[in-house]
Amino acid sequence: MDFRSDNTAAIAPALFAAMAAANEGTAAGYGGDDLSARLDGAFGEFFEASVKVFPVSTGTAANGLALAHICPPWGRIIAHREAHIERDECGATGFFSGAQLDLLDGDHAKLSEDRLAAHFAAHAPGVHSAPPRALSLTQATERGTVYTLDELRALTDLAHDAGLKVHMDGARFANAVVALGCAPADISWRAGVDVLCLGATKSGGYACEAVVFFDPAMAEDFAYRRKRAGQLGCKSRFAAAQWLAWLDPAVWHQHAAHANACAQIIARAAQPLLTAPAQTNQIFVKLGDAEKAWLRAQGFAFYDWGSVGSGEVRLVTSWQTTIKEAEQAAAALRCLIN
Amino acid sequence: MDFRSDNTAAIAPALFAAMAAANEGTAAGYGGDDLSARLDGAFGEFFEASVKVFPVSTGTAANGLALAHICPPWGRIIAHREAHIERDECGATGFFSGAQLDLLDGDHAKLSEDRLAAHFAAHAPGVHSAPPRALSLTQATERGTVYTLDELRALTDLAHDAGLKVHMDGARFANAVVALGCAPADISWRAGVDVLCLGATKSGGYACEAVVFFDPAMAEDFAYRRKRAGQLGCKSRFAAAQWLAWLDPAVWHQHAAHANACAQIIARAAQPLLTAPAQTNQIFVKLGDAEKAWLRAQGFAFYDWGSVGSGEVRLVTSWQTTIKEAEQAAAALRCLIN
Amino acid sequence: MDFRSDNTAAIAPALFAAMAAANEGTAAGYGGDDLSARLDGAFGEFFEASVKVFPVSTGTAANGLALAHICPPWGRIIAHREAHIERDECGATGFFSGAQLDLLDGDHAKLSEDRLAAHFAAHAPGVHSAPPRALSLTQATERGTVYTLDELRALTDLAHDAGLKVHMDGARFANAVVALGCAPADISWRAGVDVLCLGATKSGGYACEAVVFFDPAMAEDFAYRRKRAGQLGCKSRFAAAQWLAWLDPAVWHQHAAHANACAQIIARAAQPLLTAPAQTNQIFVKLGDAEKAWLRAQGFAFYDWGSVGSGEVRLVTSWQTTIKEAEQAAAALRCLIN
Amino acid sequence: MDFRSDNTAAIAPALFAAMAAANEGTAAGYGGDDLSARLDGAFGEFFEASVKVFPVSTGTAANGLALAHICPPWGRIIAHREAHIERDECGATGFFSGAQLDLLDGDHAKLSEDRLAAHFAAHAPGVHSAPPRALSLTQATERGTVYTLDELRALTDLAHDAGLKVHMDGARFANAVVALGCAPADISWRAGVDVLCLGATKSGGYACEAVVFFDPAMAEDFAYRRKRAGQLGCKSRFAAAQWLAWLDPAVWHQHAAHANACAQIIARAAQPLLTAPAQTNQIFVKLGDAEKAWLRAQGFAFYDWGSVGSGEVRLVTSWQTTIKEAEQAAAALRCLIN
Repeated sequence: MDFRSDNTAAIAPALFAAMAAANEGTAAGYGGDDLSARLDGAFGEFFEASVKVFPVSTGTAANGLALAHICPPWGRIIAHREAHIERDECGATGFFSGAQLDLLDGDHAKLSEDRLAAHFAAHAPGVHSAPPRALSLTQATERGTVYTLDELRALTDLAHDAGLKVHMDGARFANAVVALGCAPADISWRAGVDVLCLGATKSGGYACEAVVFFDPAMAEDFAYRRKRAGQLGCKSRFAAAQWLAWLDPAVWHQHAAHANACAQIIARAAQPLLTAPAQTNQIFVKLGDAEKAWLRAQGFAFYDWGSVGSGEVRLVTSWQTTIKEAEQAAAALRCLIN
Repeated sequence: MDFRSDNTAAIAPALFAAMAAANEGTAAGYGGDDLSARLDGAFGEFFEASVKVFPVSTGTAANGLALAHICPPWGRIIAHREAHIERDECGATGFFSGAQLDLLDGDHAKLSEDRLAAHFAAHAPGVHSAPPRALSLTQATERGTVYTLDELRALTDLAHDAGLKVHMDGARFANAVVALGCAPADISWRAGVDVLCLGATKSGGYACEAVVFFDPAMAEDFAYRRKRAGQLGCKSRFAAAQWLAWLDPAVWHQHAAHANACAQIIARAAQPLLTAPAQTNQIFVKLGDAEKAWLRAQGFAFYDWGSVGSGEVRLVTSWQTTIKEAEQAAAALRCLIN
Repeated sequence: MDFRSDNTAAIAPALFAAMAAANEGTAAGYGGDDLSARLDGAFGEFFEASVKVFPVSTGTAANGLALAHICPPWGRIIAHREAHIERDECGATGFFSGAQLDLLDGDHAKLSEDRLAAHFAAHAPGVHSAPPRALSLTQATERGTVYTLDELRALTDLAHDAGLKVHMDGARFANAVVALGCAPADISWRAGVDVLCLGATKSGGYACEAVVFFDPAMAEDFAYRRKRAGQLGCKSRFAAAQWLAWLDPAVWHQHAAHANACAQIIARAAQPLLTAPAQTNQIFVKLGDAEKAWLRAQGFAFYDWGSVGSGEVRLVTSWQTTIKEAEQAAAALRCLIN
Repeated sequence: MDFRSDNTAAIAPALFAAMAAANEGTAAGYGGDDLSARLDGAFGEFFEASVKVFPVSTGTAANGLALAHICPPWGRIIAHREAHIERDECGATGFFSGAQLDLLDGDHAKLSEDRLAAHFAAHAPGVHSAPPRALSLTQATERGTVYTLDELRALTDLAHDAGLKVHMDGARFANAVVALGCAPADISWRAGVDVLCLGATKSGGYACEAVVFFDPAMAEDFAYRRKRAGQLGCKSRFAAAQWLAWLDPAVWHQHAAHANACAQIIARAAQPLLTAPAQTNQIFVKLGDAEKAWLRAQGFAFYDWGSVGSGEVRLVTSWQTTIKEAEQAAAALRCLIN
């Protein structure tokens, strides 16, 4: 019963089948194949907009490349202190962009309009301090929470007014879309996002991430940037095949809805232990050492979370989690509470 | 009849089957899975040595990361003017390492002992000119030729004596091993190579490249470097599964031997047109515009090669090329000659 | 009456005279002149140790180069949130080193042993989060305070035990030495500092900064790093001449003692307004808008400090400040208090 | 009798006097002083154009920063194989810009229209090979030769037509202006140069280099780039003072005319030994080992040039060279010839 991460899951049947189907004969590499040629169009339908899409192999590369394209080396990227780009990417943002992070606090891994406004107000202009040039939002956040459409709009308006571009880390974008019951466009370009790093790896794919520009002009020269970073895969048909399969609502929406639903089962049981609202497919609970050991002895796998000694653990559900596994986890947590 | 590149080929059955077999249940990510745990051992057997192996998703990333690890930013990397790192990676070496390339000429994409010795002799030491710190060899070369064991040894001895480390771009390493009838160790560490970028993508894999250090101490901190560059894939079991399948001689050796044999069929027919000795799975011939057009009209796909207007074309065979396709190409080229 | 910064001061007579004296005939450039040849020895006497010294033109370059040499690109540099490398160098640390900053809080711009220990304890090892590799201390700090010898030792011991190297930003190092009544060695290598960026620009020089390695082995290849960053000046005799003049206690100690004494005159008067202990040559006071305007109308020049709207101002004294100016500032501040 | 380089010369009287005059009282730093405020205007008069000027401390920094501003990291910078940015800056171009150099041959360190045109024609577009994005010209060249106005125009037209920006390394720009008998504008913006690195260090200054943009829009954000690279000096008045003094024709023109005239004296004597036309203040001659030793024994200091064993030496004259020294060198060389 594996709740370590949604990336411990296998490749989902629909995506694996798409790879198998693509594995016939030869095909031009480096995006020159027929499947890759359909990506801009397919993503355009998904987002109800004209977009430019660039598949890459990891979320870290997606974030790094996208941020590098919207923030100059001398800029600052404003992000939440718990953002993946700060906590889990070993400084990749600096490697790809040269820029430094400007970390803000906020409840449950969300930036707030007030704090962002205060941050801008406090910043004295001038050449000595690196100027803020990009805002990075994570949707769903590292705490499994989601920004509402209004929250997003308020943040991106502030950012744009201050001359920043807006990046969204969408490693769990689909989970947020499902949680909000909105359209993909609603929490991306309609909410002021300039570039989105959309992840399908945690939602059933293999090495299946993409950088999506909503303003094609902003994507100028991005093909060079990607190539130069070793992120233009030669057998591009297999990434494209997965994406085309995933963009079917019967896949992306279903995967996310299922994972979210599994998490809800656990969250309802764990209510008193929750340290963050359970809005998507991640659950955070505070446990004692004995409780953690007991849970693990019952066969549940999960990671400690946060700083050493925080006492928090994270449980993540995925397309592959079964309802039964979720119910077993719920039952076990109920035992701990009662 | 696709002779564009060995990377237009599909995923070979053995490797695809290995991915399918690995696609059961969940598994720890980022190299923490059981298959990844077997890699150092399996590569160790392949190379008859103790090695440290790091899978990455592209050859460009492999070369960039490996070179960055053996050459400081202020160093120069000596390479052949036709090397992939110069011609085909959009400056990735500079992105990953900061170092600059020092390009030498040499027949058929091979560096020669004499020219390397002369290059070292002519270099005036001092802080003003970036010092040579790494030698990059490609085996098999970009012209399909191979360095003999003696040639390799002579070059790596010169490099080591001058204080350089030696990198090998082995995107077509197996083709060279087969052509030389030697062991993998013979043209890698036994020949003085410090770090090898071994490619299986052009030999049947998908996004299947690896950086192999023959001195484990030299790999210190490389895990950070890879992660930071967005090259630590989360679903690591699928790369590991492919590698474990590929390392079986019934796969790697057979793939390379077949591709080389197909190329020989074509080369024998094209002898008068060859612009480089056909030693592995690439063939270079000089054709007029009308001849190229005629060949393409017959259904052969291939790329023009070299500078615009060079008149050269390249034909590449792979594990997927059929003997019949090779014979058809041979026949067509014979028509052009006669 | 200019209290804006110690870098608004002129070149001090002793240093200007040294430049004039050096301005005879020709001299080899790039450190090959006779004066530059004496630097390692002269600094060695100053620090009672065997050192390697590299003059550079700005403190930003000194900090960036030194940190890059002790921290790999994938490391984190722990520093105080108010450090110059965070606030005032436009991201130069990232440019020179690639590494990111890890910012800690602490009273009056000083890091504390407790917080540093807690920071280390909370850090979970692993490849995902960039590991701390360097500690950067500023002495005197950006708030004019000084670390005691015991405080330094405690911090550097913690850092070394955790595998970090220690950098000191010594733009106002002499002011700290004087304030503590110790020897330069006491707050540098004897206190566990691995590399010091020593500044003479704020103490009477022109473009007169230096990177000092206390372990010559740690300076390996630093000459290349400096050259490559455009920091190997050709007419090196003029920087060397200034340094040799400055290293005379009648200059460095006298300059610092004078500046500190001037600051004390002001601090005694401004006691109720001080927002940080006045230990060296910088004074921080909180004033209302009307008070600031009044002070400026009296002819005092100074900068607002901190975030926009903080109400703080900074007054800095230098070798050039006169006792009379200090007394006038003291008198004016007394007016504001009474 | 020092002919090693024009950078072994002292600070010229006019520039030293300007520094002394500026060394009164306090002045805002970082370009905020009154003298710095006059730079754009003074350079504008010099160039008969509206310009943006940024003083920096070394030519290496100037070249690196300027090229970084006109060439993206994934671009190539076309330069002559003997260019300073290739030979003498330890890879600084890569450090500042990330871009790689594309080196062309050409007689006497000059690029030719034919070769540049052939280079563009041979380049196959596409994402795999880094695209040329900047052309770097050196005027006067590393061989002391000069491009004529027509030659410059032909090269910059080719570059602009191919979408490149044009950089000029003007470390010895004044020597070229004097040699050509033209106006500074004629071989800079009027000839199609987008950004010029103008050097006064080799013409009497101390750490006196500047980046000059002829299109102010192209300078956007350059202030951040410079600051971040540690090239915004705090005591900016001293660089500005030197520049304002140097921009007087009685200084820059006189310095260059004198140095060129000294070189002519030597060149006339050395005619049979010259390996490059002596057009400015550098002379290249081929000598045997015994001849070099004899010359040095006579008290002449100079550097060997080119590759180890090339037999070439370089003699450089400066504002400080005396006519008598030039005549003595001429006499000595005549002895060697006869």
